[in-house]
Amino acid sequence: MKKITVFGGGTGSYVVLTGLKKYEADLAAVVSMTDSGGSTGKLRDQLGVLPPGDVRQCLLALSEAPELWRKLFLYRFANGDLRGHNFGNIFLSALEKVASNYDDVIDTASYVLQVKGHVYPVTYSKTTLCVEYMNGEVVKGEGLIDSNFAEKTRIKTAYLDPKVYFNPRALKRIQETDLIVIGPGDVYTSIVPILLVNGVKEAIASSSASVVYIMNLMTKQGQTVNYTAKDHLDDITRYLGRKPDVLVINNGEVDVETLNWYAENEERVVYNDIDLQSFKGKVIVGDFVDRRPYVMEESDLVEKFVRSVLRHDGDKLAEVLYNLHT
Amino acid sequence: MKKITVFGGGTGSYVVLTGLKKYEADLAAVVSMTDSGGSTGKLRDQLGVLPPGDVRQCLLALSEAPELWRKLFLYRFANGDLRGHNFGNIFLSALEKVASNYDDVIDTASYVLQVKGHVYPVTYSKTTLCVEYMNGEVVKGEGLIDSNFAEKTRIKTAYLDPKVYFNPRALKRIQETDLIVIGPGDVYTSIVPILLVNGVKEAIASSSASVVYIMNLMTKQGQTVNYTAKDHLDDITRYLGRKPDVLVINNGEVDVETLNWYAENEERVVYNDIDLQSFKGKVIVGDFVDRRPYVMEESDLVEKFVRSVLRHDGDKLAEVLYNLHT
Repeated sequence: MKKITVFGGGTGSYVVLTGLKKYEADLAAVVSMTDSGGSTGKLRDQLGVLPPGDVRQCLLALSEAPELWRKLFLYRFANGDLRGHNFGNIFLSALEKVASNYDDVIDTASYVLQVKGHVYPVTYSKTTLCVEYMNGEVVKGEGLIDSNFAEKTRIKTAYLDPKVYFNPRALKRIQETDLIVIGPGDVYTSIVPILLVNGVKEAIASSSASVVYIMNLMTKQGQTVNYTAKDHLDDITRYLGRKPDVLVINNGEVDVETLNWYAENEERVVYNDIDLQSFKGKVIVGDFVDRRPYVMEESDLVEKFVRSVLRHDGDKLAEVLYNLHT
Repeated sequence: MKKITVFGGGTGSYVVLTGLKKYEADLAAVVSMTDSGGSTGKLRDQLGVLPPGDVRQCLLALSEAPELWRKLFLYRFANGDLRGHNFGNIFLSALEKVASNYDDVIDTASYVLQVKGHVYPVTYSKTTLCVEYMNGEVVKGEGLIDSNFAEKTRIKTAYLDPKVYFNPRALKRIQETDLIVIGPGDVYTSIVPILLVNGVKEAIASSSASVVYIMNLMTKQGQTVNYTAKDHLDDITRYLGRKPDVLVINNGEVDVETLNWYAENEERVVYNDIDLQSFKGKVIVGDFVDRRPYVMEESDLVEKFVRSVLRHDGDKLAEVLYNLHT
């Protein structure tokens, strides 16, 4: 079976893993561990646990458990002391408190959610994502970077404080996998925090896996303001330590209503300026926009938290990834 | 296999069920659903769920899951928004929110905790336990009755507001069981709230099961002040609608330190004044005191909540109950 490993943690990873789950493949997710916003951020600060949110999303994406278990892990409390907290996050946090190590947390959650494949947090050490912008401003904490709408300059450099080492299981998986799928996901708050963990870049360099980068659909305030496709590729290449072998780029149309919604945050479609002469790898261009009606989850309403309205179509991406010959 | 059904919900039920679990028997607990104190009371008030605490205790007593699951369901958060809340209570509450009915909540929790036997909440309807004391005072809510240390008069009558009907599964179990074990447990806050549910008394009357009452070790402020064994028996008989067939009464000694601890709340050993001439059933008198050192759980410390220091020995009770021929 083809071993496919997705790097990320947010909505993009959820979409692509959900698509890949339908195929006969050996699946894994290597998950970013620097989330610090919302329920995850509070649990992290108040209980001293590792951030559970991205792990939970990846577990759910690969879950084949009955619908009741999936609904339970998606459930967000709407009232009282627990208001705003997601049950899945609470589950992982309590489990971390009683388990002797985080492998047991992952194994127990994977068992109960009947996960097809594996979810590997990139590190089991606590760390904070920090970025320094071109104007010298430093922002510490993924939650703050994510909501840094005022910032218009680009990120000069990103780093983890403190520096942390990889989870050995994640590293082993990187070394053994056939395909590494980077994204879709926010460059600086989903992808780069994985690549910054000590040892990950080296593991990718020594792996024989092909690396696919799935280009974002939209630019994002606070981290990829006015970025073109080439800008995305340059930043990913820098933190990855090599160019991806394959690029997957959308050319499907986005409706005007959605564009206007993004325009309010000065976010726009990523313009494809990849030079096919200078990029030596394979470039797959196609319509990868999910046009199914977007259903606001109850949890979105509780947290008044807007997730990506425009999403990749996980089925279309999975078809391309599964059939990729590199 | 002998069908044994324990009525209760608190520490006493936990003890006797844990003892019975070691035997080849068909076990069940019929659980009181009027708890309104601590984490349970808050979840009930804030989320509008059924009180989870007693259900959780009985599930845990019958659980054969790996130790990690048991530790998880016992875990109480010590900090932040979740401080004081028990994970098992949160689990049951979230599950109730996403499940279509409470049977699914019980079945899902029983599955994950690998419960040997069955746990049946006596009702799936929300209600409040109310008591009226001899002096006319009315107290509404189990949590308030439990902490009503100032009250020195006896309870004249207890009732549920609103009146509620039985859970059909609980009723079916009562009709089919060989042995009904009442207690050990607080008369008015663990036992009577079960017997007050519409239909339960009638089901017991029409069942061919023998009824065993395990006499409490100590009196309890707010509900059984200065009660003798006969006082306990009279009140249980009144709400049960018949006399028990068997009484299990402790005659083992209690150490002075423990007696002094209880004396601070004016609580004392239940004096055995059962008249063996007038009580027609079987009376089993023996040493049923648990003399193993009492280990304060971390959860006790968080909630600053003192549970019964003096407990029945579950193994001794189970041996008597399992070998009972009636």
